Amino acid sequence: MKLSALTGERFRETPSDCVIESHAFMLRGGYMKYVANGIYSVLPPLKRITDKIERIIREEMDALGGQEVLFPVALPASLWEESGRLQTVGRELLRFTDRGGADMVLGMTHEEAAVHLVREYASSHSRYPFMIYQIQTKFRDEARPRAGLIRVREFIMKDAYSFHTSQEDLDAFYQRCLQAYERIFARAGIPQVVSVASDSGMMGGSLSHEFMLLTSAGEDSIVLCPHCGYRANMEAAECIVSDTPNQTMQELAPIHTPDICTIQDLCSHLDIPPKNLCKAVVYQRNRDDSYVIVFLRGDLEINETKLTNLLGEGIHPALITEDSGLEAGFIGPCGLSCENPSSPNAKHTVLYDRSLQGSCGLACGANRKDFHFTGLCMERDCPDVCYHDLAKAVLGGTCPACRKIGIKVSRGIEVGNIFQLGAKYTHAMHMQYMDENGALREPLMGCYGIGIGRLAASVCEASHDEFGPIWPISIAPWQVHLCCLRSDNEHVHSQADSLYNMLQEQGLEVLYDDRAVSAGVMFSDADLLGVPIRLTVSPRNYKEGCVELSLRQDKSISAKIPMDEVLLRVMETISRLKEECRPA
Amino acid sequence: MKLSALTGERFRETPSDCVIESHAFMLRGGYMKYVANGIYSVLPPLKRITDKIERIIREEMDALGGQEVLFPVALPASLWEESGRLQTVGRELLRFTDRGGADMVLGMTHEEAAVHLVREYASSHSRYPFMIYQIQTKFRDEARPRAGLIRVREFIMKDAYSFHTSQEDLDAFYQRCLQAYERIFARAGIPQVVSVASDSGMMGGSLSHEFMLLTSAGEDSIVLCPHCGYRANMEAAECIVSDTPNQTMQELAPIHTPDICTIQDLCSHLDIPPKNLCKAVVYQRNRDDSYVIVFLRGDLEINETKLTNLLGEGIHPALITEDSGLEAGFIGPCGLSCENPSSPNAKHTVLYDRSLQGSCGLACGANRKDFHFTGLCMERDCPDVCYHDLAKAVLGGTCPACRKIGIKVSRGIEVGNIFQLGAKYTHAMHMQYMDENGALREPLMGCYGIGIGRLAASVCEASHDEFGPIWPISIAPWQVHLCCLRSDNEHVHSQADSLYNMLQEQGLEVLYDDRAVSAGVMFSDADLLGVPIRLTVSPRNYKEGCVELSLRQDKSISAKIPMDEVLLRVMETISRLKEECRPA
Repeated sequence: MKLSALTGERFRETPSDCVIESHAFMLRGGYMKYVANGIYSVLPPLKRITDKIERIIREEMDALGGQEVLFPVALPASLWEESGRLQTVGRELLRFTDRGGADMVLGMTHEEAAVHLVREYASSHSRYPFMIYQIQTKFRDEARPRAGLIRVREFIMKDAYSFHTSQEDLDAFYQRCLQAYERIFARAGIPQVVSVASDSGMMGGSLSHEFMLLTSAGEDSIVLCPHCGYRANMEAAECIVSDTPNQTMQELAPIHTPDICTIQDLCSHLDIPPKNLCKAVVYQRNRDDSYVIVFLRGDLEINETKLTNLLGEGIHPALITEDSGLEAGFIGPCGLSCENPSSPNAKHTVLYDRSLQGSCGLACGANRKDFHFTGLCMERDCPDVCYHDLAKAVLGGTCPACRKIGIKVSRGIEVGNIFQLGAKYTHAMHMQYMDENGALREPLMGCYGIGIGRLAASVCEASHDEFGPIWPISIAPWQVHLCCLRSDNEHVHSQADSLYNMLQEQGLEVLYDDRAVSAGVMFSDADLLGVPIRLTVSPRNYKEGCVELSLRQDKSISAKIPMDEVLLRVMETISRLKEECRPA
Repeated sequence: MKLSALTGERFRETPSDCVIESHAFMLRGGYMKYVANGIYSVLPPLKRITDKIERIIREEMDALGGQEVLFPVALPASLWEESGRLQTVGRELLRFTDRGGADMVLGMTHEEAAVHLVREYASSHSRYPFMIYQIQTKFRDEARPRAGLIRVREFIMKDAYSFHTSQEDLDAFYQRCLQAYERIFARAGIPQVVSVASDSGMMGGSLSHEFMLLTSAGEDSIVLCPHCGYRANMEAAECIVSDTPNQTMQELAPIHTPDICTIQDLCSHLDIPPKNLCKAVVYQRNRDDSYVIVFLRGDLEINETKLTNLLGEGIHPALITEDSGLEAGFIGPCGLSCENPSSPNAKHTVLYDRSLQGSCGLACGANRKDFHFTGLCMERDCPDVCYHDLAKAVLGGTCPACRKIGIKVSRGIEVGNIFQLGAKYTHAMHMQYMDENGALREPLMGCYGIGIGRLAASVCEASHDEFGPIWPISIAPWQVHLCCLRSDNEHVHSQADSLYNMLQEQGLEVLYDDRAVSAGVMFSDADLLGVPIRLTVSPRNYKEGCVELSLRQDKSISAKIPMDEVLLRVMETISRLKEECRPA
């Protein structure tokens, strides 16, 4: 391919809305173009990258015995009705009505479609286990698309669905799939991706892992234990407070605290640290706006995922109205009425985080304007409450696995996920098989996703310098970038032409820049395109009978190669670079 | 691949809603499954077929210098507003609103997206010509999906867009693309596809061709001249009536025709053939319901596409109200008022088909209940009218190209189309480039589509017998179907296993049926899967040290091959079958 004919524009300035490097480079390098919020058109360099990623994924899925299928993008809402998700999934599921008045959705994941496809086929135990997968466009109506291809609304995803007749079989396959994922990320050039325990969220099921590229550009928080290797998404990480609870026994005493209604103000006023407070955080259920009040230690934050999972339904931060019976800023566990005066059928739900368990001598709200209590003793004053794990894990906290102190928190990009779904979908959608004894049973499912575009962007995040991406050879848009400096020089141009032809005849993927532009423009374009091997033909090199070979990953090292050795050296270099993408 | 593990069910009964063979075979053979009206999930055999079709298409597009890109499925309505098609395209364009309230559409074709992608890139003449293409899911909310993959709502299409700075350049590229299409269809196994002149419809532009597989299962009508080879879609074919007009000069005389308001009744009553009538066909504009009255010879039918093109807007068959001023059943050209008494601003439009030009002695309506005229002479009684080509071409009519009599009409499936769009989209969307002299100009466009699933179904229509599809080797889901009869016989099973391994090691695509089922079930499944080469291992063949080789396309011929020659013979057969898919 000649660069002069390559569709797409490259430019120097970073667009103002780019918060991460991969987003900026993909726009600046002519990889993609913005079409609408969270929606992009893909230009040839990115198409070539995603094609290679898809090929790697297909090979690994096929090696697991996966069979490629294709589900529709537009699905009848009735399928999502069957699984129950039409009700439980929020506005990220795009719903529409077709011309015949039928309710439809745009597929954001395809568990329902997978069950629909094999429901009759897999009616006998002899068909199991099996796995089907697709690589298909998905649409998720994200409220806040951001960061280029990291969080989009339309994206291409590989999603696989496995079906099993026993938990052991699902466990074994899940483990094989986890290893296949590690190979995929290694082959795509980011072997540093780690699997972390995760929350299953809207997918349901019991066990799930996310595959995380740890990077400050990520939007997920990951909890890591430096001692035992425990890894979990913040949403799933258990919070264990490491310091012993305050045991100072005092009387419960009201104190006048006019206009003091924040944690900070109360701590200053009483001269105590936040962890000696029992704070209230209030939500409302999405379903009926009824209030949910959570008490936790003053220095911790609520993990909304844990709270949603406990409640089994969606919530939002509360708007505390005057007739709610709640005294905003002064809510506490003692003397709090669960009645809602303005809505007698919507009683308040009160929950306690286990960070409070066994604590004494706490300050808390007195449920009365301008008053707090001091001396709250949980066991004495709130004797019969249940405690739940509802707080976010904190830096330096206790590891839930090895119980040592000192967990770390990192940012990460989720580049894949795998779920044990169990019988959630097969049960809801009445999929059954006949077992060896003639009994009808529900198969167990696993599902396994990778976003193709997000993976490409993640590789760019993990592998770039200030000038552009450094693509691993396994997914690079081309293998060799051939620069012809001073293409107005006939000899030089003809040398470059014959090099281009020779390399292409060997089946190599060459991007050839023979434009009449300055070396600066030529090299900065090459940096933006990130092709791993660069060959430079120039008047000086020509005189010396040489070509210059350098690597995108370390431009400081370059070698002058005699013309008749170029092919050999390029082939050697490709082999060596491919080694770097070989799974361990 | 072992057939025992292949996802999908095969069955004998033709589903009742299948009107064509490809639809029935694709359901019966486990190629796809119905999800919703015009929406299917694709199972592995069809996925393998469409993958091969896509590969052929990619090779031919790349050979034209095409660059693969990817446009979004969900597009902002504003892009279609720019081109004007948001208004002009009907309900087949699916519109929806996203969670942020933005108006969106599902892409049914991507001219707007193509212009959007390259509008800035192609701002200099030096970038031209170029062609971009994608293979992507499309959604078209068809009112009446039918015939399996022939007319669906969701489908995968290859659509290409070329950009040019002169009509000559567009002409030349269009011609190259036409030839590439002929190669694509030949390589996919249907070289008999013909290109026919077509109507440009909603795409706009001047010149277009459809590629038609002539078959009675098709839903398009094609006009063919056996003398000169003229071919056109009925929608685009000029109608030239071959018989000389009736010249009998008579006086215009009213006759009482009580309750006679159909062509048939009037012909019986007057004892004249339909071609001696001037009949009226009445439509209403979609925009304002104003009436459009077309007069044409009594034996011809209106071509609504020609009428829509002439009017430049959509129409529907009229509902003639009592206060319209029209006398349904008695409408004629003499004394017809164009005023609409009930809607003074919506005057009637009156048009004349050229089949009437120069005719005399015609019968026609008298615009008065229960009265007709006889003796209508067009030149005398309607002296100043314009005639247009508004009738459908008829079997036996005059060829518009060579003017010989005897055109034929065939049914066909449209498997591809190409359009010269001119500057329709670049003008509307303000895409310009600077020419050699610094002047701003609008580029010219061509667009080129092929529906992948429809092509697969068309090959099935063209190549099947009563038992199933006969896939050409170039797109067959597998190359070899290995049947092991009596797999309970250890020797036979082991011979089949080693044959399977040997063929796979050679890189051949083998579907291996080692199920413990009867020969009848095994062979009828093989027929449904349509794999070109069949190898049968059986106790008798085993005793003779042989394997039976037969071809799906002619099962009556089979050969017994000694085990040690099987590989060679299979390779030879594959080469020979590949020859059949080589473009001329």
